Amino acid sequence: MPASAFGEHLQPFSGITSFMRCPATRDPAGADVVIVGVPYDSATSYRSGARFGPRAIRSASAMIWGYHNLHRLRPLDVLRVVDYGDVEVVPPSVTDTFRNTEAEVLAILETGATVLALGGDHSISLPLLRAHAKRFGPLSVVHFDSHPDTWDSEYPGQPYSHGTIYRRAIEEGLIRPEAYIQIGLRGSTGGPDDWDWARQRGVRVITMDEAAALGVPALIAAIRETASGPVFVTFDIDVADPAYAPGTGTPEVGGFTSHQLLQLVRGLKGLNLVGFDLVEVNPQYDHGDITALLAANIAFEFVALRALR
Amino acid sequence: MPASAFGEHLQPFSGITSFMRCPATRDPAGADVVIVGVPYDSATSYRSGARFGPRAIRSASAMIWGYHNLHRLRPLDVLRVVDYGDVEVVPPSVTDTFRNTEAEVLAILETGATVLALGGDHSISLPLLRAHAKRFGPLSVVHFDSHPDTWDSEYPGQPYSHGTIYRRAIEEGLIRPEAYIQIGLRGSTGGPDDWDWARQRGVRVITMDEAAALGVPALIAAIRETASGPVFVTFDIDVADPAYAPGTGTPEVGGFTSHQLLQLVRGLKGLNLVGFDLVEVNPQYDHGDITALLAANIAFEFVALRALR
Amino acid sequence: MPASAFGEHLQPFSGITSFMRCPATRDPAGADVVIVGVPYDSATSYRSGARFGPRAIRSASAMIWGYHNLHRLRPLDVLRVVDYGDVEVVPPSVTDTFRNTEAEVLAILETGATVLALGGDHSISLPLLRAHAKRFGPLSVVHFDSHPDTWDSEYPGQPYSHGTIYRRAIEEGLIRPEAYIQIGLRGSTGGPDDWDWARQRGVRVITMDEAAALGVPALIAAIRETASGPVFVTFDIDVADPAYAPGTGTPEVGGFTSHQLLQLVRGLKGLNLVGFDLVEVNPQYDHGDITALLAANIAFEFVALRALR
Amino acid sequence: MPASAFGEHLQPFSGITSFMRCPATRDPAGADVVIVGVPYDSATSYRSGARFGPRAIRSASAMIWGYHNLHRLRPLDVLRVVDYGDVEVVPPSVTDTFRNTEAEVLAILETGATVLALGGDHSISLPLLRAHAKRFGPLSVVHFDSHPDTWDSEYPGQPYSHGTIYRRAIEEGLIRPEAYIQIGLRGSTGGPDDWDWARQRGVRVITMDEAAALGVPALIAAIRETASGPVFVTFDIDVADPAYAPGTGTPEVGGFTSHQLLQLVRGLKGLNLVGFDLVEVNPQYDHGDITALLAANIAFEFVALRALR
Amino acid sequence: MPASAFGEHLQPFSGITSFMRCPATRDPAGADVVIVGVPYDSATSYRSGARFGPRAIRSASAMIWGYHNLHRLRPLDVLRVVDYGDVEVVPPSVTDTFRNTEAEVLAILETGATVLALGGDHSISLPLLRAHAKRFGPLSVVHFDSHPDTWDSEYPGQPYSHGTIYRRAIEEGLIRPEAYIQIGLRGSTGGPDDWDWARQRGVRVITMDEAAALGVPALIAAIRETASGPVFVTFDIDVADPAYAPGTGTPEVGGFTSHQLLQLVRGLKGLNLVGFDLVEVNPQYDHGDITALLAANIAFEFVALRALR
Amino acid sequence: MPASAFGEHLQPFSGITSFMRCPATRDPAGADVVIVGVPYDSATSYRSGARFGPRAIRSASAMIWGYHNLHRLRPLDVLRVVDYGDVEVVPPSVTDTFRNTEAEVLAILETGATVLALGGDHSISLPLLRAHAKRFGPLSVVHFDSHPDTWDSEYPGQPYSHGTIYRRAIEEGLIRPEAYIQIGLRGSTGGPDDWDWARQRGVRVITMDEAAALGVPALIAAIRETASGPVFVTFDIDVADPAYAPGTGTPEVGGFTSHQLLQLVRGLKGLNLVGFDLVEVNPQYDHGDITALLAANIAFEFVALRALR
Repeated sequence: MPASAFGEHLQPFSGITSFMRCPATRDPAGADVVIVGVPYDSATSYRSGARFGPRAIRSASAMIWGYHNLHRLRPLDVLRVVDYGDVEVVPPSVTDTFRNTEAEVLAILETGATVLALGGDHSISLPLLRAHAKRFGPLSVVHFDSHPDTWDSEYPGQPYSHGTIYRRAIEEGLIRPEAYIQIGLRGSTGGPDDWDWARQRGVRVITMDEAAALGVPALIAAIRETASGPVFVTFDIDVADPAYAPGTGTPEVGGFTSHQLLQLVRGLKGLNLVGFDLVEVNPQYDHGDITALLAANIAFEFVALRALR
Repeated sequence: MPASAFGEHLQPFSGITSFMRCPATRDPAGADVVIVGVPYDSATSYRSGARFGPRAIRSASAMIWGYHNLHRLRPLDVLRVVDYGDVEVVPPSVTDTFRNTEAEVLAILETGATVLALGGDHSISLPLLRAHAKRFGPLSVVHFDSHPDTWDSEYPGQPYSHGTIYRRAIEEGLIRPEAYIQIGLRGSTGGPDDWDWARQRGVRVITMDEAAALGVPALIAAIRETASGPVFVTFDIDVADPAYAPGTGTPEVGGFTSHQLLQLVRGLKGLNLVGFDLVEVNPQYDHGDITALLAANIAFEFVALRALR
Repeated sequence: MPASAFGEHLQPFSGITSFMRCPATRDPAGADVVIVGVPYDSATSYRSGARFGPRAIRSASAMIWGYHNLHRLRPLDVLRVVDYGDVEVVPPSVTDTFRNTEAEVLAILETGATVLALGGDHSISLPLLRAHAKRFGPLSVVHFDSHPDTWDSEYPGQPYSHGTIYRRAIEEGLIRPEAYIQIGLRGSTGGPDDWDWARQRGVRVITMDEAAALGVPALIAAIRETASGPVFVTFDIDVADPAYAPGTGTPEVGGFTSHQLLQLVRGLKGLNLVGFDLVEVNPQYDHGDITALLAANIAFEFVALRALR
Repeated sequence: MPASAFGEHLQPFSGITSFMRCPATRDPAGADVVIVGVPYDSATSYRSGARFGPRAIRSASAMIWGYHNLHRLRPLDVLRVVDYGDVEVVPPSVTDTFRNTEAEVLAILETGATVLALGGDHSISLPLLRAHAKRFGPLSVVHFDSHPDTWDSEYPGQPYSHGTIYRRAIEEGLIRPEAYIQIGLRGSTGGPDDWDWARQRGVRVITMDEAAALGVPALIAAIRETASGPVFVTFDIDVADPAYAPGTGTPEVGGFTSHQLLQLVRGLKGLNLVGFDLVEVNPQYDHGDITALLAANIAFEFVALRALR
Repeated sequence: MPASAFGEHLQPFSGITSFMRCPATRDPAGADVVIVGVPYDSATSYRSGARFGPRAIRSASAMIWGYHNLHRLRPLDVLRVVDYGDVEVVPPSVTDTFRNTEAEVLAILETGATVLALGGDHSISLPLLRAHAKRFGPLSVVHFDSHPDTWDSEYPGQPYSHGTIYRRAIEEGLIRPEAYIQIGLRGSTGGPDDWDWARQRGVRVITMDEAAALGVPALIAAIRETASGPVFVTFDIDVADPAYAPGTGTPEVGGFTSHQLLQLVRGLKGLNLVGFDLVEVNPQYDHGDITALLAANIAFEFVALRALR
Repeated sequence: MPASAFGEHLQPFSGITSFMRCPATRDPAGADVVIVGVPYDSATSYRSGARFGPRAIRSASAMIWGYHNLHRLRPLDVLRVVDYGDVEVVPPSVTDTFRNTEAEVLAILETGATVLALGGDHSISLPLLRAHAKRFGPLSVVHFDSHPDTWDSEYPGQPYSHGTIYRRAIEEGLIRPEAYIQIGLRGSTGGPDDWDWARQRGVRVITMDEAAALGVPALIAAIRETASGPVFVTFDIDVADPAYAPGTGTPEVGGFTSHQLLQLVRGLKGLNLVGFDLVEVNPQYDHGDITALLAANIAFEFVALRALR
């Protein structure tokens, strides 16, 4: 009999699907990296379904064999990674969801582990940033996305939704704006303010058109110039073109290829990466699992970056 | 040129998709029936996506030619039906959504029109019942569903979700329990209380197994014995077997056929029907639009019943 | 924090998907029921993909709340059920797969636990029957299927495939033919022998046409007349009509409804049930997960039957 | 090497997909039955795509093993069946399509072979009826459908579409109305005339509600009372409920199960069946190929009926 | 209550789906741009279904927020845009369809509005060009496509189909060949003449291989050199690679990315653009709505270009 | 009537689907190229279903019109191409499958024809290489793939699976390592040895990252430097990015575009190409047939290359 029910010695179609077949446990003690699902999707402005993102990414992660050929290491040999399962989200209440998420994540961080959170829609970044800022102080952020998520409000009187949380994070002092970079913005917006609000606060905003003109090496240089101190990485899968990531809630045409994104993420090597989220994978709109597979590979890259730290 | 952009004189693949090609207007004045979408799905306990239910039902409704062969009338000749579009839901906040829904629906009811609401998940019944009870007093309810929706709470401290709202409605006095009938319950539950809570309050609860043993005519008789006074009809599409309605959030195997459901709904003829909702159509999980088509036909039956009133 | 990473106190969209959120462990000691996936699909004669059956059933099982309303008990309160994960199958070699499956299952049976196996194609019954016969002696079998699976050979010189294994089992003396009943056969066949071979050996064969004429109560009576001693139940999901179970390898039109099948399985109450398999769920051809959901419910019925034993 | 490239000695996933692996030939000489695809779908009033119906039915037919257990014969042993491929349809022109179809089919009929035509939308019945009436005189027709297809016109000035061709056939004298039976009509219609026009001309019209009340044996009796002389059978797959046949252009909820339809078709045994069509299979809206598989089985039943003649 | 049933102040999942939530009206008086659906798909040579193109594009257009970040304007603030719904197409008759389309479009053009037509297959360009040439004289055309659409005939004796209409347009003198540019041709063809016929008449033909070698800026320069006078833009979505636009009738591998196409279309700024069509979106073959979303964005770019005029 | 049932004079939606409508025959005598399906998928390590690859490619090939615009010839005018159908695979036995495949293919090669094999998973290369090496001696190989397929074993004691066969081929002396080039390797692996084993034996291994840096012309040069003597081309469709080829068993993100792949394959012009396979097309995971269409076009390029030889 192989070692565990997660099938780490079996072919990828076998076994109960924890992330990369890591042990499933609610106890983060002794772990270097804790995978945490945050299956909340009530704050999306278009297609709901990202609550099944963690399940889809876990399933796709079975195909990752584990050795990283560029970094030349096997992260799971270097780190103890466990899969916590999911935090207790409350779909009808964004505030209850944020409270639970922040509390559960903070408890994990306090053990010294790094959290890799799998969304869920992008609103989940806010409780993650709150927890990380409590532990690490105001954060540098590297933000891959087709949207800035710095709207003031999507609904009258409602401060929280997947398009507002990075404004909230800046307002709450969770982020150091001058150490915050957004990459990949595109599409039509509500007005000129959508992209300018962050710029006016010192955030480095690189639109998709600018990114395409710059090319990958220059983008990596820009990231490395901006990021400093404890860095949180937030990766909205809709930064990829819909051809590469159809399974998402608010796709925007004209985006990055998967090859470009892998290169960009590998370019984070050496930064002081203290936290990660990977959001907006919506398997209802995926096909052939290609979005989940891209997400699983990005998550693997994150684990590898952490192993290099 | 045909009369309107909704294509009422064109083939069903043509035109902008209002419900049955009725005029789209925010002004219910003079209307007998107002179609109201309530695209809220943050209170579902499993598969989100019912926010696209109204859009899918409107699209499928284009295939309904309009003459009812059993009742021998064309409802749209007898009634003025308009499509209001959707109320302003607030996905991250069930309370904001309920407040808006109740207010918008009550304003329509006050014009004397009947509302046919298209969900959205089943939680939307609560603001609908609040609005209808304000206008008509405590209601008799005919409830088609595979679940009782009378749980106390699905999340600690959170009173509202798609599985609790009929308990809330009874607690709030919106429903007359002795004039309330539930049909189609099945599947495993959290405990014996799930089906018994309502029974203990005098609600007539007919499980799927009981319904299958009784047969359609006896079920219609049971409905007619129970319903009295102003009757609200709530139709959760998951009362149909998943073979007939795969496109829903919490499907339960072992349910009704579409033919049985059409017969049951036609059996409501002559009751004092004052309100309708049709909920839990989730097109992300549909195929070949069969769920949306069943829903559109049930909605058409509702309009026809109203025309007979 | 809830008790485990499998999310047993969370909503069904949450948690790592073990079967009904049971503990995942390779160690069956102390368990009453052990869920065992056998993700082998190289012996199917048409559509491959059943290797993902166990994963799909586990995922769908999250929607089962756990209380059985007919039997009035919560099986997981009565039994200790664990999820073993999957046995080590070898897709290019049916003999290696059978050897591994028999050995792993026998090791579990020897702890005294009951195995509920999730396929995989129907060929996996053979190693299961071998293991069970070693422990319990020749078996009585209740076999739900649209095919008899008693062909001599589907490929020249190749004794094993999903259409031959019940002939092999009889030839090997694993089954007591007079205590063996097949229900639901239909469709065109290779010749008259397909259905007659088993009949000639004393097996009770009830075709779908006969079953439809008899009705459910008479079918249950026939099962109970035939089954005796230690009974193994094998359930090929293609016994359901493709409308109810599209996600399978060799669908046959004109089959049972899901309601009929639930009733039939519940009719096994009180038999000396010593083993179960549920095979041929092929999620690649499913939609809206309806096949997986039916399978998960049948598996739940099996657990409940075992709880009643 | 097996005998042909169509794989008649191989498993059903193998081989080039002619209908039931019959020889593909443009030369009908010596054939008893000729399979003829008519991939025309420009006359449908809702969802186009039935042009791929013949291809889908051919592919699904590979799963039919060939021995008919009720009739106890293997039709392909009794009859020489060949697959002609498709007639030359002209999508932008219904008149060119009808002219070509009639001519090609008539040429086949003149060899003495029976044609089994695979649509395509239901409009293709008109050229088929023209060709058959030329050879056999006015026809008795058994018509399975959810729609009567006796509208006067769906487009101003346009006599031909999939909803008008049975009115045209009666007007042209191709059908003997008193020997014409329609079974399965349902859904809303344009007006009372939709179902009454044929009735007023002596056609026996049995709606779905009437059919459900009568039951299968009485329906078979009604068919056998009505049909006489040379009989043409036309089978619109939308006579099945959308749960059983989602892959069709104008699905109507509340229809037959696949088991009922197989029984009905088998009830045609012994009639003087001179022609068959099977129409409106639209694989774009199918899932798990269940519609194509039902159609392939109905086509097999037709071949078996012809073998019994 | 928000202003209209189209939900312009609501989230994108809300409201009846007119194009970009513009008013739906049959009366173009006073409009600057009129959206016109032409849901005709009977002239396609492969996969039908483009009749649902207008519906899919309207639905996807709800996600467009409306401010154009490159042009720095909100087109709907500058222009009055209305959605006319669909013209009356006649699927069985290309000639009736062309007659109706030309007449309805010409009536709109005569009010002074610009038409943005949504197909439908590419054959609809011919009646559009006829109408525009009547108003504007012979046209300059910018044609994005993987096919030249200049075949002589796809069916014996049939002049009109989606592969012939640009030959017809040249023959009819609707286009000024020297002011006509085709971009993106690729794939195998019927012969060398497919690409040469237009070249021989002075059309500038840039194949995909040539386009890839030239790059976007040079392509824009080529367009601007060729186009002059009143320019009609025709955009066949199959110019995009199938990875970016799977939902189309005759996909050709090896095409443009969505980012390239957005850049190309923006390069039309400043031309005298008098008409637009966007054709061959076939949602039956789409997934995750990515094709519809790309089309909606291209349509938005067209509206923005018109706003800049 | 057109010439054959395969519809070579009809539109691409018509006819029985042999490859490019070539004659279907088991007799290769006189053929220049023989299309051979090898529908075996039991050796895949993740998603089964490639057994339907040949069927999907044949169906998609109907859209290829036949004239090659770069090479300026119509291959089917120059070569006699026939479609053999499929070899007799034995899903439960890799050894039986290999024996049959080698024997059937060798018999074809002995007639002097070139074989173009359509998989099936990549394991089928081994019997193909055995047959070709028997006829042509040790081979030069051009191998497009995201995986090296040079693992030692994927299952204890089992030498054959889709990830091991190129190690076996080298071990058996079927390939000249110094004339063997692999292009496109990427993704995580089991360890450093996965990519190094072949390199250590003199194989030229170009990873995807290296390929992206080199660009297409340099890659073509590298191929032409390496290949010599009789060349076998093996094309695993997963060399394409999943955006371009989702329908495959083990997709790897970050791959080639379809345009790059067409250019690379055209770059083989002039080599002494003696055999071809195209593997791992798995239509169950495809959408809009884009993977099958890409494969059909690559197969067409192979036929064109052979025509140029």
